[in-house]
Amino acid sequence: MSLDQVLARIDTDLPEAIDRLLELLRIPSISTDPAFADDCDTAADWLVKDLQSIGIPAEKRTTPGHPMVVGHAQGSGTHLMFYGHYDVQPVDPLELWDSPPFEPALEETKNGQVIRGRGSSDDKGQLMTFVEACRAWKAIHGTLPAKISVFLEGEEESGSPSLVPFMEENADELTADIALICDTGLFESAVPAITTQLRGLVAEEITLTGPSRDLHSGMYGGIAMNPIRVMSKILAGLHDDTGRITLEGFYDGVPELSDEIRSQWQNLAFDHKTYLGDVGLSDPAGEQDRTPLEMIWSRPTCDVNGIWGGYIGDGFKTVLPSEAHAKISFRLVGNQDPDAVHQAFVKYVEENLPADFTVTYNEGKGSGASQMSTDNPAFEKARKALSDEWPRNASYIGCGGSIPIAGHFKDILGMDAMLIGFGRDDDQIHSPNEKYDVESFHKGIRSWARILAELA
Amino acid sequence: MSLDQVLARIDTDLPEAIDRLLELLRIPSISTDPAFADDCDTAADWLVKDLQSIGIPAEKRTTPGHPMVVGHAQGSGTHLMFYGHYDVQPVDPLELWDSPPFEPALEETKNGQVIRGRGSSDDKGQLMTFVEACRAWKAIHGTLPAKISVFLEGEEESGSPSLVPFMEENADELTADIALICDTGLFESAVPAITTQLRGLVAEEITLTGPSRDLHSGMYGGIAMNPIRVMSKILAGLHDDTGRITLEGFYDGVPELSDEIRSQWQNLAFDHKTYLGDVGLSDPAGEQDRTPLEMIWSRPTCDVNGIWGGYIGDGFKTVLPSEAHAKISFRLVGNQDPDAVHQAFVKYVEENLPADFTVTYNEGKGSGASQMSTDNPAFEKARKALSDEWPRNASYIGCGGSIPIAGHFKDILGMDAMLIGFGRDDDQIHSPNEKYDVESFHKGIRSWARILAELA
Repeated sequence: MSLDQVLARIDTDLPEAIDRLLELLRIPSISTDPAFADDCDTAADWLVKDLQSIGIPAEKRTTPGHPMVVGHAQGSGTHLMFYGHYDVQPVDPLELWDSPPFEPALEETKNGQVIRGRGSSDDKGQLMTFVEACRAWKAIHGTLPAKISVFLEGEEESGSPSLVPFMEENADELTADIALICDTGLFESAVPAITTQLRGLVAEEITLTGPSRDLHSGMYGGIAMNPIRVMSKILAGLHDDTGRITLEGFYDGVPELSDEIRSQWQNLAFDHKTYLGDVGLSDPAGEQDRTPLEMIWSRPTCDVNGIWGGYIGDGFKTVLPSEAHAKISFRLVGNQDPDAVHQAFVKYVEENLPADFTVTYNEGKGSGASQMSTDNPAFEKARKALSDEWPRNASYIGCGGSIPIAGHFKDILGMDAMLIGFGRDDDQIHSPNEKYDVESFHKGIRSWARILAELA
Repeated sequence: MSLDQVLARIDTDLPEAIDRLLELLRIPSISTDPAFADDCDTAADWLVKDLQSIGIPAEKRTTPGHPMVVGHAQGSGTHLMFYGHYDVQPVDPLELWDSPPFEPALEETKNGQVIRGRGSSDDKGQLMTFVEACRAWKAIHGTLPAKISVFLEGEEESGSPSLVPFMEENADELTADIALICDTGLFESAVPAITTQLRGLVAEEITLTGPSRDLHSGMYGGIAMNPIRVMSKILAGLHDDTGRITLEGFYDGVPELSDEIRSQWQNLAFDHKTYLGDVGLSDPAGEQDRTPLEMIWSRPTCDVNGIWGGYIGDGFKTVLPSEAHAKISFRLVGNQDPDAVHQAFVKYVEENLPADFTVTYNEGKGSGASQMSTDNPAFEKARKALSDEWPRNASYIGCGGSIPIAGHFKDILGMDAMLIGFGRDDDQIHSPNEKYDVESFHKGIRSWARILAELA
């Protein structure tokens, strides 16, 4: 089997591959907002059709939420299970986008050509790198290099409510020799990487209610407790002055780095000044006795992702509101128990609530962190393939984000998972003006072709 | 002059008076929102026409903001200057209104008939009590009982930016023997009252900016400081554990109650359990070493009137936002200096801002508190007139709200002002479902007729 022919085919087919991606990006498949449910369905249909066109007999599988796309191509050798997600993040604040988020386009930048639009990097652009690698292989060889299954989800950005039940119900069908997940990035936008360490996530939305209705602060200010004051105190108390999270038992199950990993990470010579400087900051905000790379990769965190209450329009209204709201999330590491963290948070909120107040919870879901074992020889083969494609050798790295699917593959299906992706730090995923470098897309496709050749 | 005939005329004309008020309430004259500028203008035109119809030659006077309505009727005796405002509060959250805010209607409630709609109490319903009293007097006597001027503002709910310059430019024209202001309420919804003590107001909107763009909390959580965390800490620190406001020098100029006032207030037997119980609360939230009535009437306060930042839509988005916003206001008493309070707030915010962060300010305006002198004999005459109309004798009371106009009448024009109004505690001004009792409207008109007779 000639890899060179496949790589050449990828190079000449690039404009068509970009057109296909633009078509997929035009579908506003926002999974968190019920208004876009039909668009999620349309994106699934588009992928089913595209996979069928390259000889993977895919089908749309219903769930209580958005559908899964599952397809299995016959083949010999190693059985590979590729995972990606076709849903995307919401787009607000819409006014900060320089072009409409669902009218994707190629754009010249000082760092080269990019594909601009919601989902271009997270995760439609990334999942299509694998699909395009298969397409090129098929075009040259008439067949795929291995037994390949594809499993695409439409609820990754909304907490994957249907994922675990679907995996449990279809465990035999979804089990392969190894899983491939394309939802991560290059290290510092340059070094190809296999992510072996992922944080978990606990997310909760709380509403604090004090007065039974909005009040006039002239009549009730001073005597009626203001829910925003209570919320501020609760949120401010989540961290102490050293950046440590204050919930009782929060650090239970948080491992210290092994000397080996600590030494590997020191060798990466992570430049936190540049990492923070890129976003207008300079001081690391986490636990002050940890290194910046530990803060991102190996330490648990707490962030308020949204807050609102009272009058937020133009001008001024001297209202003393009835309610205040916040969305809070925790990133977990090691053996931290998501349920225990959630319970500690609930206990903390309730201990800090005035007697007159009530709290309601809205989300309260979570997943633990994952640590891959790199014993499976596929890891070293993939690392070689990536090192062949890119100017620098590939590394095993950690990742601050949560990709619970990797843990589910291990726990439910007993499969190792390799997390390989080509996103860059400045892709602005989850932000306005998301983009994916054409180089990420092009070399990403070539990387998968090389990995398939190694694993075949 | 027969007062009885005037009162009888008011009784028979009530249905028509209500119809006129409903017409005025249908004009959505929200002054804080530029989208409603034309409606403010329409409300001013409506009032000009209505005042002209009762023999007060009013005209619309332009300002850099919304217009003033000014009219002077010739007459003998005491020269009275009546002030009210035709602008109204914004209506959000709109979904909490049981009927559209600008489709006012009469409604039966367990406490009697009410006029429901934005502005019914604050301040269109109140200002029309005076206009209707004049109309009845004119209808019976063919003339007004005194030299009456009317001065109506359209920016009271947005901080009155044009008021002081307008008063300064037209000082001679606007000076009378005494000012009458109808923008306050009955004491505990039952006792007619002349408000002689008003708190001042300093309002500020701040935007904290940390990261230069919204970030993914998986990539930057732990290392990038979250503006909502910073905002929460700043807001939480405005009060200490005893409910005292922490700004440096904040209590400078705050007087202690005189023994006489303290004794008068004790005689009012204010029932804070009912006052708070009506809105679902029980514990007074202010300075814990002060009585509930002091908290409302004579102590300065601080409230957050609005807060927002990050993702506030349905579902979850693990964003680490670039900005957080809050609207904060302080109610002032005694000789607290609004500029000094504003400066202390700015200093406090900046001292608590991380090095990487910036803050912008948006409002920053303020007015001091007012204390009327009741030496002018008009006060006792008005108190007698109110006591004649209502089942209980009228009192001099304090008020938590800010009506800076009273201070301006004194400072700029050298006039005393009498604050007389008929609002009730449950009118829900500044809240959804604002209403004005038909009894407040009816007896309010009759009250002004009696006061005019006394002052004439």
